[in-house]
Order: sequence, then C-alpha cells, then structure tokens
Amino acid sequence: MDVHEHETQEDSGAPAAARDEAGYFSSAFVEAVGDAIENRDRKTLRDLCQDLHNADLADLIEQLDQERRTQLIQLLGRDFDFAVLTEVDDTVREQILEALPVAAVAAGLRDLDSDDAVYILEDLADQEQEEILARIPEFVRVRLRRSLDYPEETAGRRMQSDVIAVPPFWDVGRTIDYMRESDDLPDEFYELIVVDPSFRPVGTVPLNRLLRTKRPVRIDEIMDTPIRTIRGDLDQEEAARIFERYNLVSAAIVDDSNRLVGVIHHDDIIDVIEEEAEEDIRGLVGLGDEEISDNFLYTARSRFPWLFINLWTAMLAASVIGLFDESLEKMVALAVLMPIVASMGGNAGTQTMTVTVRALATRELGGFNKRRIFWRELLVALLNGVTLAILIGIIAALWFSNAELGGVIGAALVFNLLVAGSAGFVVPVLLDRFGADPAVASSVFLTTVTDVVGFFAFLGLATLLLL
Amino acid sequence: MDVHEHETQEDSGAPAAARDEAGYFSSAFVEAVGDAIENRDRKTLRDLCQDLHNADLADLIEQLDQERRTQLIQLLGRDFDFAVLTEVDDTVREQILEALPVAAVAAGLRDLDSDDAVYILEDLADQEQEEILARIPEFVRVRLRRSLDYPEETAGRRMQSDVIAVPPFWDVGRTIDYMRESDDLPDEFYELIVVDPSFRPVGTVPLNRLLRTKRPVRIDEIMDTPIRTIRGDLDQEEAARIFERYNLVSAAIVDDSNRLVGVIHHDDIIDVIEEEAEEDIRGLVGLGDEEISDNFLYTARSRFPWLFINLWTAMLAASVIGLFDESLEKMVALAVLMPIVASMGGNAGTQTMTVTVRALATRELGGFNKRRIFWRELLVALLNGVTLAILIGIIAALWFSNAELGGVIGAALVFNLLVAGSAGFVVPVLLDRFGADPAVASSVFLTTVTDVVGFFAFLGLATLLLL
Repeated sequence: MDVHEHETQEDSGAPAAARDEAGYFSSAFVEAVGDAIENRDRKTLRDLCQDLHNADLADLIEQLDQERRTQLIQLLGRDFDFAVLTEVDDTVREQILEALPVAAVAAGLRDLDSDDAVYILEDLADQEQEEILARIPEFVRVRLRRSLDYPEETAGRRMQSDVIAVPPFWDVGRTIDYMRESDDLPDEFYELIVVDPSFRPVGTVPLNRLLRTKRPVRIDEIMDTPIRTIRGDLDQEEAARIFERYNLVSAAIVDDSNRLVGVIHHDDIIDVIEEEAEEDIRGLVGLGDEEISDNFLYTARSRFPWLFINLWTAMLAASVIGLFDESLEKMVALAVLMPIVASMGGNAGTQTMTVTVRALATRELGGFNKRRIFWRELLVALLNGVTLAILIGIIAALWFSNAELGGVIGAALVFNLLVAGSAGFVVPVLLDRFGADPAVASSVFLTTVTDVVGFFAFLGLATLLLL
Repeated sequence: MDVHEHETQEDSGAPAAARDEAGYFSSAFVEAVGDAIENRDRKTLRDLCQDLHNADLADLIEQLDQERRTQLIQLLGRDFDFAVLTEVDDTVREQILEALPVAAVAAGLRDLDSDDAVYILEDLADQEQEEILARIPEFVRVRLRRSLDYPEETAGRRMQSDVIAVPPFWDVGRTIDYMRESDDLPDEFYELIVVDPSFRPVGTVPLNRLLRTKRPVRIDEIMDTPIRTIRGDLDQEEAARIFERYNLVSAAIVDDSNRLVGVIHHDDIIDVIEEEAEEDIRGLVGLGDEEISDNFLYTARSRFPWLFINLWTAMLAASVIGLFDESLEKMVALAVLMPIVASMGGNAGTQTMTVTVRALATRELGGFNKRRIFWRELLVALLNGVTLAILIGIIAALWFSNAELGGVIGAALVFNLLVAGSAGFVVPVLLDRFGADPAVASSVFLTTVTDVVGFFAFLGLATLLLL
C-alpha cells in the first residue's frame, strides 16, 4: 500500500502543512497546538482547530498529553463539538470525561445526536451517568434512557432516537412540506419510515424516490414493503449481518410490541463490523479490550490471563512428555523431533479452527453443511498429513540414519493432523452450541489437544516400536 | 447469541416455512425447489423463488447441486436477477458463469448496476470477459471497461458509474424537476454531486437537505464543501478507512485529472471492510482465498504452502535442539520442560504481533507513537515474563527437586518473552515498511524466532550452568 495515496485526502479540511506524507499530523503542528494550550491562547487554538474534521481533531487529541487534552476542550469551550469524543480511543475518552466538570459534559452532550450521546455515556459508571443525565433537559433525557435501557452491544444501544415517521395516507407534497417546516429533524437520514396509527413501521420510502415522485402521489403507493425491522434487543452483530446481507443504508428499530423506537444507520454498522472482526481476531490470540493508547501496566494485566491459561496447558503437554522420560533417555533423537509433530498439528488445526470460527461468525456454517465441512476437513488433514509425513519421514530417517524412526514420526504426524482437523472443527462448533464465543476459547483447547496428542502419539509409538 | 433473534427477520420475504429456526432454509424447501428443477416446472419454481430477496436466493443456490444451480437460472429465465450472483461464493459464481451460455450472461449483465456487473465480470478470464462484453450495448460496455481498467481491489473497481451530477448554479426546483424527468437515474443514491464545467466535483448535497430546501435556493448555497473525493486507483482498503473515518454514505470517485467518473456506496464499503478483516485473519494463520463451498482438494492445496513453510521452521527449531543432544541425554528433564519456554514465547509474541498488525491496518500506528509502543511492548513482556518465570520456576524446581533448574527455566523464559515482544513488534513494522503484507508473513517469522530462541536459551543456559 502506497502511503502517497493519502494525498487524495488533501482536501480533508486540515491545513496541508499539518500532515506528513503518511497522513499523520506533523510534530510541528502538534507542538503549535500544545504551545497554544500552554499559553491559554484561545484565538490561535481556535484557528488551528476550526477546519479540522471531528475525526482529525480526535486524532490530534490522542496525540496530546493527558492534561492538555482536557485543557484543549475547555479552551475551545462552545466551539468544541462533543461528537469528537466518539472518535477517540475508549481509554482517552474515559480520561477526558473524568477530568471535565459534570456540567461541561452535560452541556456538551445535550445537543448531540442521541446515538453519539449514548456512545459517550455508556462506558461511564452508573453514578456519573446519573449526575450527567440529571443536568440534561427532560425530553432529551427520556430518549437517552430509552437507548441506555437496552443491554450493551445491542442494536438499541446504537440507535438514533430522532426519527422521521409519516403515515401512509399522506401524499408526497404534504410530506415534503412537513420536512421543510420542522426544524428538529435529525441531521442525516436516507429514508422515511412509514408507520401505522399505533406507530408500527409498515414500509420505507428512500428519499430519492420521494424526490422523483409528483406531489399528489400517496406515500403508500411508493413505499417499499415488507419493511425489514430490527428489534432493539437484537445483538449488534446480528444487526450488522442483516445490513450486510440486504445492503441496507438504515433500518427501523422496534420494541417488543413492534413499535418504532429509533433508527440505526450504515455508519454505526460499519463500526460494529470493525469491532466484531477485531473481537474475533483478538479472541483467537487472547487479547482483551486493550487500546493502542493504553499504558504498559493495563496492557500487561489484560494479556496475562491468556498466558496464565496457556502456562497450564503447556505444563500438561510437558507432563505427557514426562511419562516417556525413559524412552527419551534411551533415544535422544525423540526429544529433537517431538516438537515438529506437535507444532505441525497446531498449525494445521489452527487453519481449520479459523475457517470454522469465521464461518460460524458470518453464518455460513449451518445445519445443512456441517457434516460436509467436517468430512472435508478430515480429508484435507489426511491429504496434507500424508504429504508432510512422507517429507518429514524421509528427512528424519536420513538425519538419524534410522528408517524406522522416519516411519514412526510420519505415522504420528498423520494421526496428529487428523486429530487437529477434527478438533479444529468440533471445538468451535460445540462452544458455539453451548453459547460460548468460539473465537475466544477455541485456540486454547485446540493447542492443548494438538500438543498432548502430538507428544503422546510420537513418543508412545516410538516406545512401542523402536525401543 | 440467541438464534431465535432471527425471528425478527420473519418478514424478510421468504415464506416462513422455508426457514428453520436458525434462519437457514429447511431441507423440505430446498427439496421442493430441487424437484421443481428436476421436473422443469417453471411455474412452481417461480412461485417458490419469487418472494426471495437476492441474498436469500443466493443462499438457496449455494445449497443446490452444481448442475441444478445452472438449471434453476435457465428455468427462471428473465425472472432471474443476475445481481443474485454478487451474493454467492466466488467458487459457485465461477461454476455458474462457466456453465451458462455467453449470450445468457451478457443479457443478464446488461441491466445491472455497473458495480454489480463489474463484480461478476472481474474474476473471469480475459477472453471470456471480452466475449461477454462484445454482446453488451456500447454505452454500457464503455462504463464497464472504465471500471475494469482500474486494478483489482481499488476504489475504481467498486464504483457505480451511473452518477447524478448537477452544476452549482442550478436551483433546487430545477434539480428536482430534472430528477423527476430523467428515467436513467441509478436506483439508489443518497447525495447529489455538484460539478464544475469540466466535471470536477466541487461539493455534495445530501438528499434530505434538498428535500427541506425551498425551490428557488441555488445548489451552491446548500452544498457541503470541501468535497472528500477518492481517486479511482486508491486501494479499496484505504477508501474504506476514509468512509469509516468520516462516516460517509457515498463518495465521488475521480480520475487522474480529478474528473468525476463514478461513486462508491456504503454497502460496497461494508463488503470491503469484511473482506479486509477476513484477509488479516486468514493471513495470520496461513489461509488462502478458500471458500466454505470449496472441495477438499482445492482446500488442501491452498493450505499446503503454509504448512510446508512451517515444516522447515520446525526443522530449524529441531536442529537447534539437536545441538544439545548431549545435555538432553544427561538430563532428561530438559526435554520435558523445553516446549514450555518455546510455547509461552510464541503465545506472548503472537499477542504483540496481532496488536501491531491490526494497528498498522487501521492506521493507528504512525511515526509519532512507534517508539512509545515498542517500549510499552518490552515492558509488558518484562512484567508478564517475570511473573510467569517465578511461577514456572517454582513448579519446575518442585517437580524435579532441583532449584537451579527452576532458576534456569525462569531466566530463559524472561529472555524469550523479551525477544518475543520485540520481534512481535519489529517484524510486522519492517514487513510493512518494505511493502509486504504484515498480516501474512509475520507469524512464520515470529514463531521461528520464539522457537529457536526459546530452545537455545533454555538448553544453552542449562548446559552452561547445570551440567
């Protein structure tokens, strides 16, 4: 990827000199901002920041020292758009919200779109949330609480509660007039939601169709049905799958009685998809919710549990080796070769496991193809196992001038790859069935199995046949 | 995740009985479709399929046997929307396109949005592409070629070339009238692109603003500037970052001279984000471009290269062990414990590597924080290394009643974790700098380093101090 491509972003609002060629802020610019904060020079600070897009200002804030972040926000005062806080790292956001006075946070949140306000509020402790909510006007507060009442990581948490809904019997002209006259409409929307008298969604009208239709035409003549609604308590990942599957730009969120409570947009869904892919990747290697801006203590603590679990599985594998200490003493070549069997099993099993975890996550693995995929994985393991076994068998036989040793390592390798292929498929499928997240737990189980079986098969066969 | 949540999709168009509770097609439904195909019963087939959304019909096609897939498309004839083919697996799509007559494919592609047609065409061999393009009307063909001329995985390949562009001096009324009267407008769009006389984009107008503005207002009074354009040759991943960063719903695509050539939409970007996250995950464990529907031969062949490379790195590690065969013969406990040191190094290093690979992919790791992150990773390695070393040291000392052995394994572990932390950071950063994809190559390097260093440090220290 060529970093110069970033030049197409040159009109992104930031002064050209503020960025180096890779698109990062130049240190000169960051220092100029730092100096302006130091000198409490509001005018310079405003000039430096005013043309920055929220996402860029968020980057800048992340690059400042901890105290300066809060000072910048306070110096900018009313010119600071709190939506910027939805674009910074979780850790940075928490620091800032802790440092700012409650009144300032409440004032900043009041004017945000409800989904942005909820995004900022949701990570705060209950008491802080209440203090801030108490200072927000009631009609806004009610909406924010409606989102906050949904569990974390649900569609309801991500929804925007300002929605444009119209009845099916209006005509295009009346709808357009209504939109021209109301001034508390959301900033961005792409379709109208058509609702029945009890506020249940019955259809949608894309704005471009509304624009292209003559004024006297009734809304129910141009609306799309059936409407694809999403329940507020649906897992955000499921909501993202629906968006992706049906190429939606926004979707109506409904409550238990199917009444319209909000709308969720493509940009929130893009964030969800990034987050969920990230979670799968992290789960596979035992990373928690750490951010790039976290300090070493937090990072070390969040990674330790995984290493601690792996310590015990490594011990288990070691104790399997310990069973064969006499064989190892008699034939040191076994010690030299045994890690090969275990590590090849681990690699092949991880491939199968990753395919299975992702197919479960993207709903490509269902009842209908589970059996076929299982058999496919076994055949793949057999084919690659036999090929690798022949290679390794020949190398081992030549290395230690012992043809039988070559045969034993080859046989152990085929066996371990078959076990790895089965475990790589069965472990995530079972974890998924029992409601655990297959991405997180699978790889510990898998490497334990491939290590234990790898060492046991190789050392056991060697003890039986060679000694 | 509760599969029953899928019930919120019950209004997705498919007859309720067609789906089991997890949202997959029931085998009864798939069989009914299969029978209708067998009997060449067009009417039943049309009835079964007509209410299915494209994404659902694509699922159904994937579940049919190879010959029946083509038969279904031929039986549906003009009722089959070729856009369905953008929703099936690559492998399935290629099979179908090979089996269908060229004339049928050309007729099917002619009426598609240009981005869908390009998506279907791009994986075909050049000659097949040409045969199909030759049968498509020239004004469509020119547009398709314009996209196909951009390299794979660029924004230009994903763009829709039917665009609505208006001059800045038009007023809202004229714009709306123009949209009502033209009938070759794209099906979906969310904003107008405003262009100067040489067709260079100068601003955008969200449709909702157009709707809420009175007819006599000029377009340049309500347009958003500056416009965030994307060059057609920009890598699709970079384009996705821009969308994500600036929460875009669509973006104008421009050529070298900054002239408007198309537009790229949120739904294409969602696909890109999924694809790229998938690529990173696959790269980390050595998976190629395999699909869940591929057969075992293709799958085995695509996974073999990774296993083959890992075979040699495992051999390298084994040969390091081989250097110490005398020590192992003298003290078999070393053989029992040595995999622990290597595997803990591998686990810790993989954590650092994964964080680094993802931070590079999401542009969170830049010039300004590289040094800080490197030192953080070393401190994390030191802290977790010392903690784990104490634990393992005590266990090893008690297990083999040998305090010195405990000290040696602890020291080797700390050393290996420090090496793993450095390599986990440095390897992907260097690969990225030299233009290689860090997600693909990092983990081979890393596990080689942690295995070799782990065995060498432990066996070397033990040989020096204990024997």
